[in-house]
Formats: sequence, structure tokens, C-alpha cells
Amino acid sequence: MNFADRLLEAIDRKRNPSVIGLDSDFAKLPNSLKQDFRERFGSNFEAVGKCIFEFNRRIIDSIKDAVPAVKIQMAFYEQYGHKGMKAFEETVTYAKQRGLIVIEDAKRNDIGNTAKAYSSGHLGKVDLFGESVRSIDVDCITVNPYLGSDGVLPFLEDVKANEKGVFILVKTSNPSSNELQDLTSGNRKVYEILADYVNEWGSSMIGERGYSSVGAVVGATYPKEAAALRKIMSHSIFLVPGYGAQGGGVKDVIPCFNPDGQGALIHSARGVIFAYEKTGKENEFDVLARQAALRMKDDITLALKELKVGNW
Amino acid sequence: MNFADRLLEAIDRKRNPSVIGLDSDFAKLPNSLKQDFRERFGSNFEAVGKCIFEFNRRIIDSIKDAVPAVKIQMAFYEQYGHKGMKAFEETVTYAKQRGLIVIEDAKRNDIGNTAKAYSSGHLGKVDLFGESVRSIDVDCITVNPYLGSDGVLPFLEDVKANEKGVFILVKTSNPSSNELQDLTSGNRKVYEILADYVNEWGSSMIGERGYSSVGAVVGATYPKEAAALRKIMSHSIFLVPGYGAQGGGVKDVIPCFNPDGQGALIHSARGVIFAYEKTGKENEFDVLARQAALRMKDDITLALKELKVGNW
Repeated sequence: MNFADRLLEAIDRKRNPSVIGLDSDFAKLPNSLKQDFRERFGSNFEAVGKCIFEFNRRIIDSIKDAVPAVKIQMAFYEQYGHKGMKAFEETVTYAKQRGLIVIEDAKRNDIGNTAKAYSSGHLGKVDLFGESVRSIDVDCITVNPYLGSDGVLPFLEDVKANEKGVFILVKTSNPSSNELQDLTSGNRKVYEILADYVNEWGSSMIGERGYSSVGAVVGATYPKEAAALRKIMSHSIFLVPGYGAQGGGVKDVIPCFNPDGQGALIHSARGVIFAYEKTGKENEFDVLARQAALRMKDDITLALKELKVGNW
Repeated sequence: MNFADRLLEAIDRKRNPSVIGLDSDFAKLPNSLKQDFRERFGSNFEAVGKCIFEFNRRIIDSIKDAVPAVKIQMAFYEQYGHKGMKAFEETVTYAKQRGLIVIEDAKRNDIGNTAKAYSSGHLGKVDLFGESVRSIDVDCITVNPYLGSDGVLPFLEDVKANEKGVFILVKTSNPSSNELQDLTSGNRKVYEILADYVNEWGSSMIGERGYSSVGAVVGATYPKEAAALRKIMSHSIFLVPGYGAQGGGVKDVIPCFNPDGQGALIHSARGVIFAYEKTGKENEFDVLARQAALRMKDDITLALKELKVGNW
């Protein structure tokens, strides 16, 4: 099934248009968990990787029936080299086995055969002594478009061939996103021009529910811009960071939805997976993450219901 | 020593302003080498990683006295997951031990604490149960600026604290780089506006030789644009891809140098490390790579000499 259809179906089934970010920054993991792994494996990157995976495993088990997807932020794994990368791969496999859609937030970008190598590794197949085999195999990856079509088209080949998805960075949630993305060229902003490209890139990958497997990253912190972009990219699902810790609230994310109640996947990471920090109950981090995830779900779906957006 | 000073000193010492790219695409490695590793370790990603490292090791040993630096293209390692990442790390360590400056071409980008995690892993220090330790520890990394200052400043902290470098993508070598980078805002191109940011970001990191540790990626395939950018970013070293396989010739790279003969590092990968392909002598891939690297050095330095650029 086309990625967009698969994602929308999962959102419907869980009655939840949000995604939890496994931004599993080792420094912020519960101390008791860390001490346990240090005692068992020593003070080394292997222990770090195993500890991160155990943290993720418990979060996944705790939220798997409540959310449609997880977004795994590569930076927090990659920073520990191959031991971190192993934890990333184990998390991908575990989340997929538990029925969750896995979005890799890696913001990859390059050109030609190099972009193809990234795409092959994350979405497609790589060469193994002449045989083509799957490697990291996430459902979807984020892509930075600064290099233009050359950096995106290799990913689209794998989206088509393997029923995968991409989210293209369009208007990001951070304060300085204005420096480049908000420049005006002709009478249009750079992010609007990019939105046209996203439409073009995604036009041949629209599923049965009317959405494309080529989505867009649009920050919750810029609701006006999101409303404008919602009109331009009517067939794209928006991956919406900035909710919670970055300051975006429930009202801010509503413009990211289409009138049909679809088309947005709201993301929160720290506010959910590190919910334990405010309570002092670090051994219950998984239970507290579940509570935070359900609160987020309720907040968003209640707002959608009150505003009569779609059938929420 | 400041990264820029260190790089320029290495260029002087080797009398060579070029860098060889270890774009070690497994599918393109010599068949006899691949068969050897398949027989020894089986048909698996571990064998792939070990084979890639052996290929790199022989290239490094062959070119180490002739070139100042290697650029390692992360995509070709990451595509094999943690086994590929291990080969990447081993290559970094080996190249540094042989006195080469290591530039990681990863085009990383994110915001806030996520950008910090990338930077900590690649340039700085990561948390190991409360201790701060080095992880991947390259000399320099490429960074994509689409997210603005928020995505760049965390790297600059580590550039400063650890005498590292960054190259910011400004005008890339590929055909579609025009789609975003050449948009006109006010009376300036996006890449020119970005060049001003590069100046600003790098202004406090200028070394004794007048160059900043914040460099720029400027493609050899756009010599006119390079000449304009050379004037704007007079204190930045340009990392110049596009020479050779991508169509840029000797004349095209000259505008990337300042009148002092400094400020450019010309990159070639496939034309050097896969030079064996045109000869059929795949067992001599390292010797042939050395010959190609020396040819490139001679071509560039001869052109600089003829045009009386600096003291070449």
C-alpha cells in the first residue's frame, strides 16, 4: 500500500494524528536506567547504545496501541558512532514489529549517486556482492531540499519502488528559519516556491485517499505560514514539529489540517519521552510518556472536534 | 592550531591544493578485493564494511604523502548501517594517523539540541555516563544551511572549542542547484545572501593566515558564480566539488582561488579512487589512484603557475 494511505489508515485506526519523537538523548535518560547499563556493560559506547535501545523499547511498548507512528531523530544515535547506529537500527526493527510506522528524521541531502546511496540505505536496497538487499529500511525519511531536484529525485525512485515516503523540509519550526526560507523572490517566499516543487515531486505518488507519499515539514510555530502552505500543497501530508517544547500550541497546529480533517501529523518528542523529568518518578518513564502521549492526542482531537474539522 | 591554518599549512607542505574523496561505493570496488572478503567473512554487511575499509586503507597508504586531506562521503558508509559506520570510523582514525586532514562530507543539518548532538558526535564531545568524550572526531564537516543560523551555530561552538572546521553549502555543483540557490531576492541571489552569513559566522574564527575555519562549498561547475563568491567571502576557504567526473575542468576551478594562491581546496573522488576502471588492472587500484591524484595536482598547480596566481 502507498505510504500516504498506510499512514492515514494508521491515524484513523488509532484515532490519533500525532507522532512521538524518539529523540533519545542519552544525557537525558533516567539515571537509574543508565546506572544499570553501566554496571552490566561498563562505561563505553556499547553500554550507551544498549541503554538507548532499552529506553526506546519500553517507550514503544507503552505507546504502541495509542499512536500511529514514531519519528526517530538520527542525531541522537549517530553521535555515538556505530554503536549508536546499531541502537537506531534495533529501534527501527522493534517499532515496525510492534505495528508502528517509522519516520526517520535525518534531513539527508546530497546529489546524484550520493543521494542514491542515502536513499538505497534508508528506503531502498543496497548492493551485497551483486545481490540487492534491504538495509536500514525505515518507512519514511526527512529530506533537505537545498540542492534542488537532484537531491530529491533519487529518494522519489525508492518511494515509488518500495512504497516508502519522504517529508521535504519546507518551513521549519525554528526562529532562524526565516533567514533563507522567508526570503522573497518575485512576489513569493522561498518556502512557497519550494511548496510548488513538493507538489510537482509528489504528483505521481498520490494514493487512494488523495494524499501523496511526498509530504512536507511545516513548523507548528508558524501557523499563518502553515495556513498558506496548506492551500498550496493540498495533497501533501504535513509533518509538524514545534508542538510542546518548542512553543507551538493546539491552536497553532490546526491550520496544518485540511478541511477533511486529514493531512497533518503533529510531532512531539521531549514533552512526551522525558515527561518523567517533572515528576521525579524516573522508573515510571514509560507510563508517564504514555500519559503525555494520550494527553497530546486528546488535546489535538478535542480542538479538531470543537472546530468541526473533518470527522474528529 | 586553528583548522584553517592547519589545512593551509598542509596544502603548502604537500604543494597540493586538492583533496581526494573516499566515495567508496561498495558496488564499484574491485571485484577481486570483494571476492576475497566474501570468501573470508561471508556475504554480509560485516564483510562489506571490512572490504570498504581495506580499499580505503590501501588508497590512503598510496596517496598520503601526496595530498593534504581526504574527504569521506558518509552516504557510502551509512547505507550499510552500523557496519558501514564502523568502516567510516576506522577510515577516519587511519587517515588521521597517517597525517591526513579528514573532512567528513555529511551535509548535516538540524536545529537546537539536535544540531548540537550532530556537532558533539562529529566534532565535539559526547556524554558517556557523565564524562565528556570524543566520538567520531573528524577535523571538519560539511553543513547544509537551509535551517538558518540555528542549524549552524551549534557547530561553530565546537569549531571554536576543538579547533575544528565546517564547510557550509553555498553554491553546489549540481545542475539543479539553481532551483533554490539562484533565486533572486532583492537584487541578490540566495547563494550571495548566504555568503554574507558565512562571513558573519566565520568572522571570529580567522586564523593567522587570514582564513576562517568556516569555509564554503562552491561547485567547480559554476566558475562565474565562484568568482563572484570569491569576492564576497574573501576569508573563506572554498571546498570545490565538481572537478573531473562532474565536468569541471582546470580553468573552472581557478576563480575559486584568491590572488594569494590560497583559499581553495579542489575535490575529486571517482576520477581518482576508481581510476582503475578504465585500465582493467584492478589489483593496482591504489597505484592508479596515486597516479590520478598526482595528475590532478600537476594540472591544477601548473594552471595556477601559468596564470601567476600566488606562489605556485
